[in-house]
Amino acid sequence: MEEKKLFELVKEDLRKIEQELINEVSERNEFLHDPAMHLLKAGGKRLRPAFALLAAKLGDYDFEKVKPLAVALELIHMATLVHDDVVDNSMLRRGLPTVKANWGNKMSIHIGDRIFAKSLLLIDACKNNYVAKVLAEVSVKMTAGEIQQLNGAKNISTSIKEYLIKIKRKTALLLSASCELGGIMANVSPRVVYALKQYGLYVGMAFQIVDDILDFTADEKVLGKPVGSDLRQGLITLPVLLALKRDKKHELWRELQNLPQNNANIEQIIKEIKNLGGISEAYAWAKNYIEKAISAFDLVPKSPVKDTFLEIAQFIVQRNY
Amino acid sequence: MEEKKLFELVKEDLRKIEQELINEVSERNEFLHDPAMHLLKAGGKRLRPAFALLAAKLGDYDFEKVKPLAVALELIHMATLVHDDVVDNSMLRRGLPTVKANWGNKMSIHIGDRIFAKSLLLIDACKNNYVAKVLAEVSVKMTAGEIQQLNGAKNISTSIKEYLIKIKRKTALLLSASCELGGIMANVSPRVVYALKQYGLYVGMAFQIVDDILDFTADEKVLGKPVGSDLRQGLITLPVLLALKRDKKHELWRELQNLPQNNANIEQIIKEIKNLGGISEAYAWAKNYIEKAISAFDLVPKSPVKDTFLEIAQFIVQRNY
Repeated sequence: MEEKKLFELVKEDLRKIEQELINEVSERNEFLHDPAMHLLKAGGKRLRPAFALLAAKLGDYDFEKVKPLAVALELIHMATLVHDDVVDNSMLRRGLPTVKANWGNKMSIHIGDRIFAKSLLLIDACKNNYVAKVLAEVSVKMTAGEIQQLNGAKNISTSIKEYLIKIKRKTALLLSASCELGGIMANVSPRVVYALKQYGLYVGMAFQIVDDILDFTADEKVLGKPVGSDLRQGLITLPVLLALKRDKKHELWRELQNLPQNNANIEQIIKEIKNLGGISEAYAWAKNYIEKAISAFDLVPKSPVKDTFLEIAQFIVQRNY
Repeated sequence: MEEKKLFELVKEDLRKIEQELINEVSERNEFLHDPAMHLLKAGGKRLRPAFALLAAKLGDYDFEKVKPLAVALELIHMATLVHDDVVDNSMLRRGLPTVKANWGNKMSIHIGDRIFAKSLLLIDACKNNYVAKVLAEVSVKMTAGEIQQLNGAKNISTSIKEYLIKIKRKTALLLSASCELGGIMANVSPRVVYALKQYGLYVGMAFQIVDDILDFTADEKVLGKPVGSDLRQGLITLPVLLALKRDKKHELWRELQNLPQNNANIEQIIKEIKNLGGISEAYAWAKNYIEKAISAFDLVPKSPVKDTFLEIAQFIVQRNY
């Protein structure tokens, strides 16, 4: 199924969210406006607002009530992206130069700080203390994930457990909060809140694992950045870790020692990771998380919205971009 | 009067706040702990917590109630400092290397993001929606101030009005919020809330103007950074703007054109700024704000706490560090 079709139920409202995002991010000051809008336009799927709206559809759906949450979630996500690009030295994202690449580190820091601060106004507009509490907690944990990445960036011995903690903090928790809080803003029952929270967490884990797989397998044009970018930056992700587990002769291990200083034989290394089964096993892990996400919905009564959640979960591991 | 004596009424509780700050900022991860603690120890007066506690003394003082606010205010302040040092390329603050200087830009971004996120947990712990709202608004405005500085950094034609807007955003609003919200957390009357808010705003304006004056006049050892640092960075502050207004022959103006590329004749330029009356007129502006701050307290009944607020206001323009 196409990605667009998946969000059919909230398509119109997602369009309104896009307009709200433009309103929030645009600036009277031209000096700021261009990089801020560049960041907005470069950024993708609006998965967090989409999940929040869909989750609200499981309860008393009131677009005006869930709107500030949906916008805040995307702003938080954007703020972390623009700071991450500085830390990871990323020059390309989705085929476009990053804010860092075009306007430099200082502007990236500011834009991130500003967009994050704006998200606080919207969180306040939710008028729900639980929403504020959850997003404060998630924000703190997200910074822990970023820092873990900075710290462990060049560390091949990163254990699988550490990798999982990192992607939970960096990706899964905000997706989990998107689902959970969307439900909260529509007064769904505690049982459904719990299902949404678990679903978002597991889908988030799978989503990031697939992202890390696609970094090795996707078409460069589709990906918008060079294949193996993570590895080139010295970032060790699940496919590598799983391949290393099967690397009895320590050949892959030895070659990784010289990265990212020596990027010449990166193609060869990727081939080895594939040969050792790193990619296919990582897919198995992602599918396992998707099954957990689907199970989380077991107790939620059948409805078109529930079906959509299940289809999205399936789509996450099938996508090739 | 000595600075320490000014906060005599809240001395014990400020000590507890310092311990809370250590608890909040310290990290299990050593990689993070050192720069975070460095930032905490490098940073000064704890003016924002002190104002919050003193303001609470005007109402039903309950330390446990005002504590999370006081800690959050200092964390917000610290987060802005560590990001500012990246943007301003500052290597020294209060005589110590900045986090940027010792650990680099990436760590500075992270530490700032993390400490700011932690402040959100404490704001949540205040359990007061007005507190959350005001601090969200102030945070957005503070980023506007930073960006204004980035934008106008090398712009000699910065008008005095723009300078005032900038220091309001960068400094005065958070001090204003510290006073106002300290009162809020102690249920002071609306009239006193208003007095505190105005007082903090005007004291904040005066405080920043004096800071900008001291950059030219203070002893290098007391200042902890080279005299004229702002100007060396191309930062045009009130003493310069006021001197330029009297610079009929455009001599100062011409010399400033070559800054900061040419820092050789900075001593000469500072002398000119002084000769043109830039310093003394800037002091007059600071004193004018202090008078407004004091007037804001007119309707507050006399008490030792009120006296303290008035003494602090007087001290702001007398301090030489």
